Amino acid sequence: MRVEAFGTPELGCNDFLGGLVTIWQPLFGYRAGVDPVLLAATIPATPGQSVLELGCGAGPALCCLGTRVPGLRLAGLEIQPAYAALARRNLEGNGLVGEVFEGDIAAPPAPLKAQSFDHVMANPPYFEPGSRRAAADPGREMGLAGPLSLPAWVTLAARRLKPGGTATFVQRVERLPELLGAMPSALGSIEVWPLVPRDGRPPRLFFARGRKNGRAAFRLHPPLAMHRGPVHLEDGDDYSDVIRAALRDGRALPFPQ
Amino acid sequence: MRVEAFGTPELGCNDFLGGLVTIWQPLFGYRAGVDPVLLAATIPATPGQSVLELGCGAGPALCCLGTRVPGLRLAGLEIQPAYAALARRNLEGNGLVGEVFEGDIAAPPAPLKAQSFDHVMANPPYFEPGSRRAAADPGREMGLAGPLSLPAWVTLAARRLKPGGTATFVQRVERLPELLGAMPSALGSIEVWPLVPRDGRPPRLFFARGRKNGRAAFRLHPPLAMHRGPVHLEDGDDYSDVIRAALRDGRALPFPQ
Repeated sequence: MRVEAFGTPELGCNDFLGGLVTIWQPLFGYRAGVDPVLLAATIPATPGQSVLELGCGAGPALCCLGTRVPGLRLAGLEIQPAYAALARRNLEGNGLVGEVFEGDIAAPPAPLKAQSFDHVMANPPYFEPGSRRAAADPGREMGLAGPLSLPAWVTLAARRLKPGGTATFVQRVERLPELLGAMPSALGSIEVWPLVPRDGRPPRLFFARGRKNGRAAFRLHPPLAMHRGPVHLEDGDDYSDVIRAALRDGRALPFPQ
Repeated sequence: MRVEAFGTPELGCNDFLGGLVTIWQPLFGYRAGVDPVLLAATIPATPGQSVLELGCGAGPALCCLGTRVPGLRLAGLEIQPAYAALARRNLEGNGLVGEVFEGDIAAPPAPLKAQSFDHVMANPPYFEPGSRRAAADPGREMGLAGPLSLPAWVTLAARRLKPGGTATFVQRVERLPELLGAMPSALGSIEVWPLVPRDGRPPRLFFARGRKNGRAAFRLHPPLAMHRGPVHLEDGDDYSDVIRAALRDGRALPFPQ
């Protein structure tokens, strides 16, 4: 990992997709893990389409998706100016073209409201404000427990979608009732795909997808295992094949048919 | 199966729990399958507690639960008088004591509203009215696609529970968003347990449980497989061990810890 003094906060540089993507992010603030990378891998975007990420942070999901699928029109919305600036830097650094808006999910800027997209993705904060001890770093706290309820994310995603477009979220399983309760009023053809640490374990995360104007029945997919086998036996990581392909090789991780 | 002419409709007699329970139900109306039997097996009732079933039909779940756990105070609410009468007959025929109220989930009778229970269970109709071609038999149609939305079932269940009591539902997976969206406003400590035909297949049904005044985080459990192996290879049924024990031996089917 390279480190760069960047005033406050200091930045570190991380490789994603086996080095295909390089992301600068704060060393001590909110840092992307595997979740946005996997989210980006699930997005069924095809060359020439447009994708908006809500709460894009430093832009790892946008950079991974733009690298996997060439010729996308990329856009992000980020409330924290320092992260929005980093997302612009990271898009450019990865040879991608994209527009990053600064603003609030609950009151998005007018230029964004004038646009619509084929796909929207979001990795909203996992914790409700006040539900836990706050992180010392305010940027990190915003990424972990932003003040907005999940229905506001669903509403904005649906509004910015073209008819037939998809909105995909990754979220902690504890908030499935809140997210799933909000989706049907804004989106149809809803699917939930639980992500389990290993086969037979309870899920900790899930992907949820809805389609604007979709009319298919709700589907709950079989869980996707992050790791192979019942316990961690090997040195190093033991990602399952599809997870490894998504994280290390930049492959797609399509929802089950 | 024994058959009895009972005016209209004709009744048939079915054994449940390997013959421990005998249920008379209409030959051509709404007929209980395995779902209410499994629902009853999940209820964490202990001797001396009270249990209410909403939409009890001919009473198979009440009879199975009352047979597995002795000394329960059993009650049912059923909108169709002919089914309420059958539920009374079936409780008595299985040596059980219970009270079956006739009435509507949305406007329950006053004597029921005066009572509260340790556990409530329900197997609400699986289809929304008008979503499919109606069954010719009106009793069967009421059981398959009653006119009430699922939130009304959740609301009544929560109202009739004692503090700390549990409400457990079994429902088609297509209606998970509707049920899960309604539960958090009335119940806490919500858990969902998907029921899959076989390991790795998408779930068709799920159990959902909430606790009155519960404060635990939502949990999504690993799926429970109805059948063994990837395909049906044997003659006869190939139920998984825990399902067979619940259906044939009258054993409990406790939610995962």
